[in-house]
Amino acid sequence: MTGINLDLLSINTIRTLSIDAVEQANSGHPGTAMALAPLVYTLWNRVMRFDPEDPIWPNRDRFVLSNGHASMLLWSILHLTGTRAVNADYEQLGQLSVTLDDIRRFRQFGSKAPGHPEYHWVSGVEVTTGPLGQGIATSVGMAIAEKWLANRYNKSGFKIFDYNIYAVCGDGCMMEGVGSEAASLAGHLALDNLCWIYDNNHMTIEGSTAIAFTEDVATRFHSYRWNVLHLKDANDIEQIYHALKAFQETEGRPTLIIIDSHIGYGSPNRQDTAKAHGEPLGPDEIRLTKRAYGWPENEQFLVPEEVRAHFAAGIGARGASARRKWMDLFAEYRVRYVKLATEIEQMQRRYLPEGWDRGLPVFPADMTGMAGRDSSARVLNVLAQNIPWLIGGSADLGPSNKTLLTYPGAGDIQAETPGGKNLHFGIREHAMGAIVNGLSLSKLRPYGATFFIFSDYARPAIRLSALMELPVIYILTHDAMGDGEDGPTHQPVEHLASLRAVPGLTLFRPGDANEVVEAYRAIMQLRHRPAVLVLSRQPLPTLNREKYAPASGVSRGAYVLADTPDGEPEIILIATGSEISLAVQVHETLVFEHIRSRVVSMPSWDIFEQQPQEYRDRVLPTAVKARIAIEQASTFGWERYVGDNGHVVGMQTFGASAPLKELQKEFGFEPERIVRIAKNMLGNLPGNNR
Amino acid sequence: MTGINLDLLSINTIRTLSIDAVEQANSGHPGTAMALAPLVYTLWNRVMRFDPEDPIWPNRDRFVLSNGHASMLLWSILHLTGTRAVNADYEQLGQLSVTLDDIRRFRQFGSKAPGHPEYHWVSGVEVTTGPLGQGIATSVGMAIAEKWLANRYNKSGFKIFDYNIYAVCGDGCMMEGVGSEAASLAGHLALDNLCWIYDNNHMTIEGSTAIAFTEDVATRFHSYRWNVLHLKDANDIEQIYHALKAFQETEGRPTLIIIDSHIGYGSPNRQDTAKAHGEPLGPDEIRLTKRAYGWPENEQFLVPEEVRAHFAAGIGARGASARRKWMDLFAEYRVRYVKLATEIEQMQRRYLPEGWDRGLPVFPADMTGMAGRDSSARVLNVLAQNIPWLIGGSADLGPSNKTLLTYPGAGDIQAETPGGKNLHFGIREHAMGAIVNGLSLSKLRPYGATFFIFSDYARPAIRLSALMELPVIYILTHDAMGDGEDGPTHQPVEHLASLRAVPGLTLFRPGDANEVVEAYRAIMQLRHRPAVLVLSRQPLPTLNREKYAPASGVSRGAYVLADTPDGEPEIILIATGSEISLAVQVHETLVFEHIRSRVVSMPSWDIFEQQPQEYRDRVLPTAVKARIAIEQASTFGWERYVGDNGHVVGMQTFGASAPLKELQKEFGFEPERIVRIAKNMLGNLPGNNR
Repeated sequence: MTGINLDLLSINTIRTLSIDAVEQANSGHPGTAMALAPLVYTLWNRVMRFDPEDPIWPNRDRFVLSNGHASMLLWSILHLTGTRAVNADYEQLGQLSVTLDDIRRFRQFGSKAPGHPEYHWVSGVEVTTGPLGQGIATSVGMAIAEKWLANRYNKSGFKIFDYNIYAVCGDGCMMEGVGSEAASLAGHLALDNLCWIYDNNHMTIEGSTAIAFTEDVATRFHSYRWNVLHLKDANDIEQIYHALKAFQETEGRPTLIIIDSHIGYGSPNRQDTAKAHGEPLGPDEIRLTKRAYGWPENEQFLVPEEVRAHFAAGIGARGASARRKWMDLFAEYRVRYVKLATEIEQMQRRYLPEGWDRGLPVFPADMTGMAGRDSSARVLNVLAQNIPWLIGGSADLGPSNKTLLTYPGAGDIQAETPGGKNLHFGIREHAMGAIVNGLSLSKLRPYGATFFIFSDYARPAIRLSALMELPVIYILTHDAMGDGEDGPTHQPVEHLASLRAVPGLTLFRPGDANEVVEAYRAIMQLRHRPAVLVLSRQPLPTLNREKYAPASGVSRGAYVLADTPDGEPEIILIATGSEISLAVQVHETLVFEHIRSRVVSMPSWDIFEQQPQEYRDRVLPTAVKARIAIEQASTFGWERYVGDNGHVVGMQTFGASAPLKELQKEFGFEPERIVRIAKNMLGNLPGNNR
Repeated sequence: MTGINLDLLSINTIRTLSIDAVEQANSGHPGTAMALAPLVYTLWNRVMRFDPEDPIWPNRDRFVLSNGHASMLLWSILHLTGTRAVNADYEQLGQLSVTLDDIRRFRQFGSKAPGHPEYHWVSGVEVTTGPLGQGIATSVGMAIAEKWLANRYNKSGFKIFDYNIYAVCGDGCMMEGVGSEAASLAGHLALDNLCWIYDNNHMTIEGSTAIAFTEDVATRFHSYRWNVLHLKDANDIEQIYHALKAFQETEGRPTLIIIDSHIGYGSPNRQDTAKAHGEPLGPDEIRLTKRAYGWPENEQFLVPEEVRAHFAAGIGARGASARRKWMDLFAEYRVRYVKLATEIEQMQRRYLPEGWDRGLPVFPADMTGMAGRDSSARVLNVLAQNIPWLIGGSADLGPSNKTLLTYPGAGDIQAETPGGKNLHFGIREHAMGAIVNGLSLSKLRPYGATFFIFSDYARPAIRLSALMELPVIYILTHDAMGDGEDGPTHQPVEHLASLRAVPGLTLFRPGDANEVVEAYRAIMQLRHRPAVLVLSRQPLPTLNREKYAPASGVSRGAYVLADTPDGEPEIILIATGSEISLAVQVHETLVFEHIRSRVVSMPSWDIFEQQPQEYRDRVLPTAVKARIAIEQASTFGWERYVGDNGHVVGMQTFGASAPLKELQKEFGFEPERIVRIAKNMLGNLPGNNR
């Protein structure tokens, strides 16, 4: 019976660590950790292939705690398995990822046991979770990535990639629409490397799920083409084990394991109550609960040595052996398949392959010009051939976003062809955002596309791209009033401002075809930042770069595109994207009338802010107070650059349904009007004696 | 056979109007209109209870075109039924809502036939659609509203409300997560007044649905507890009619009718192709298609007079008779149930009932103070008793948002109790946004609540609240770093900026309990604007309003809360929400040190911007250049108020997991630091000789 005792001892260690940590912090979520400890224990110690010595070994199984509020499950298990820390440069540090002291300082500043799982902050966390639905949706991207990697890199006798992805989730994840979107796509793609485990505890914050959630989850997942298993006892670790094995043996479908559980299991007065979700138990109830577990009532943060040894003998030994074999295999692989092995190593460090920017187009001056989405298509098709692991697609707008890779052999990602390059997300922008995050966490270089307006649908996932510092690329076309006739539901107004306000997100709105090339060049070199590329639907004149400054200025976020032929400027026109050519038109008129005008192209505020003060002052000299920003979007935020005496030509309302040219007139994006504004400004400027 | 000919003639009129309009505009979506003309014809002319003479008659059936790109279906039917226009004051104007000239000017500036259905712009449009999934999700709110209205106002012999809601949708709506969320809740609430009709055409923009969407939709809806019907022929109007009748006879479940259709039906070379979705057919194909319909090949915008007469004899006669009966019934009702009838009339015009603000609390000064969410709870419970049709709830965070109505008899909205006040949305923020829109379109006064951070999930619906000018209320708690220990996934940073950037959205971030009261007072009086109320999780000191200015200043968006005891201020501290008391602390220190400081409380930028220039200059005198804004959120946009010489104390990064007090220290929200900044600023200000 020693084995059984060790199982239970381990499970109760997780439970009591969780209870004690929440109590100590006086905040957190004990109930789910108490309920799911048997599952997490079984999954990690008996099933998962993971080496605590090397939590970033590429062929490890992935664990996603989608109900991230139960983070103590993860901190307990990372601690008990002795998982080691890794730094941002992928160097192993030797020390524990999560120490017992971190757990004692659960949810305190600097602790490696924060409130929710945070990728980058704690080694062993595969994805930042907490906003419900995101973890499971991201896991679909991770599963697509594994299939892609296996397809490209596995060779006869060399199974380099054959890992599984396990995601644990609760009622919230099941209710959130992003989970539904992702589940539907996972079934479509027959992702049999993906297992979701649904904690069916019938309890949410407002009370019983009976008040708002009475659908038949099993039937729903059948409709998505999933394999569905149902366990009636969350404490029956043999059944749990067999269900996980059944998942491993299932081909052609993802698996959902539904586990009926009791939130706050073991707590005499809190079990099966909404209170168990997010409140500390309190000292009295903790004593009662520990007594129910057969645990020393007055011990806190107790970790029996046998438990550590038990994990070492379980996941520790199994993981070490698996990794050792894999390292040997990979050493041989590196000899036999030099190029492929190099790719794997580059990807892991988010390096670009040699020659990644070979053959990028340079566009000749052309007044008719080219739509941002069209130059983007040209660039993307070059990059995707140079960078094998650059893959992506659109939320059913490929032909409009122009993001389809069309070169011979590009191919689609489908169940039968998991190694393709074009991923069809369907009309599921939110899941797309989560899935590109999952692809990026798996070290592929992904892009996702939709109309700019619909970035709103993906916003919670875009935020997580930024928070996780993932170099994903969002290609968002049909910006400004470009989608004219479709009307205000399709015309972004507030979207530039609202994305510029997200910390850590790099946004580019390039102004002509060559700025598109340079924006991609800058974006591709980002290793730890997501990028949003905002592109026009309509053609934009390709500027004559012999007359105006080279587009390479894009790499500094903003640059002087056109300047007064003599002396210092007296007025600066700042513009982005489709308004660049308008600004140049205005500029030419002003110059013709002997007004010393300058045009600053500012495709990326964010990159510009990162430049030295000296450069910024050179582009926007403090002394020049007459400034006009021109952007077909909300004026919100432009005061930063135009200053107290400036003016913003932008949008104050939603748009309207009409052809673009009419809208430009109606909303005042006409050169004559802006010339007038400029002259008035110079006339009225304090101290100006023009 | 005359009947059959008129049916087909009507259907082909809709089809050819749609084809011609798209061709004329050289943009738009002909394919779905061609496919669904038989459905829309049957629904309107044979089934729906709608009087074209009065498109806002309260007991009309509602029609929602969730696949809004097929707007020509709606423009055609509104035109052919002779639906009359109504203005913003609910006055009947007599003229046609959509003229043939509007259709000829489809998608042109000012036309009443814009690219997508736009509520407020075109009479007869029940909801703005276009962003996929929104229409169907909103229809769930409309169905909840009808049940609520029927429950409250129907009396024996007086069926004042017994209308149905029909929503037409396509593959996009079926894929979008918001649709899944809403469908699950609709099934839970047993909304048997709700019928969705799914245009199953197997075709999306990227091609066959087989590339991304292979789930079994019927089974999925069974899992949600819906009644599912499947029609194999979109041209069989008898089957369509019987299916719609079957919906009407189904009790205890919403109905989904799946119709297998052919996009671009009748076009020899475009039918069943992705091109049929969003491209004009072109003159040659139009001729071929019209020939296939047996239509004069060279006629454009042809409306046979028999068709108008046929609609007049169908929906026209049926609707007129139904409305007449209802008006008679309501006249009697008005005598028998004066109070209830008055309520109905007030609601329809978005008026508040007499005494709506009776008993609003006034909070005494209190340094310990009260959390924003707690004062909100107090106010909301008063308002909900004064305003019978104020209803709402939270996305499963009621106990945290403190939005539960707890007074005796408030009650829950459930299938068996549709007249309750507390709506449990489940963990479905996005559907919540769409549902409150649907409630508001039905003239109830709804609120929806979640954590401020999760407003991102509801963002596409919030945008539509603003675009439709609906007075819905979003109650968003746990703002700033208030959710300390939960960490960066739960701490809004960019959300204030990103919502302030939405046109037509009024945001309030009140700074103490009395500002919360005043914010509600202002919000309740909005008739055509949505409001976002951003509230703290933690207690905020209740300011002594005898010492500082009264909280009624909230109604002007910003006001001078505390001022220098003598002369003009030399420095202005501008703050919102939880930073108000911090600003006051800083102010008191500065005043003590004889610095002429002013505190401006600015709970609503938007309302402040609407004030006369004179008032704005009085609050923020142009001459005072030393300004500090204090807000625990992204600094983005604050340059507007602090100006070139100002400073913003805000967030530049995401937050962290720790108790709030630690975070305030780490991120620099401490009075000493801000006092230092203020003094430095005064010392460095150009021209300052302090």
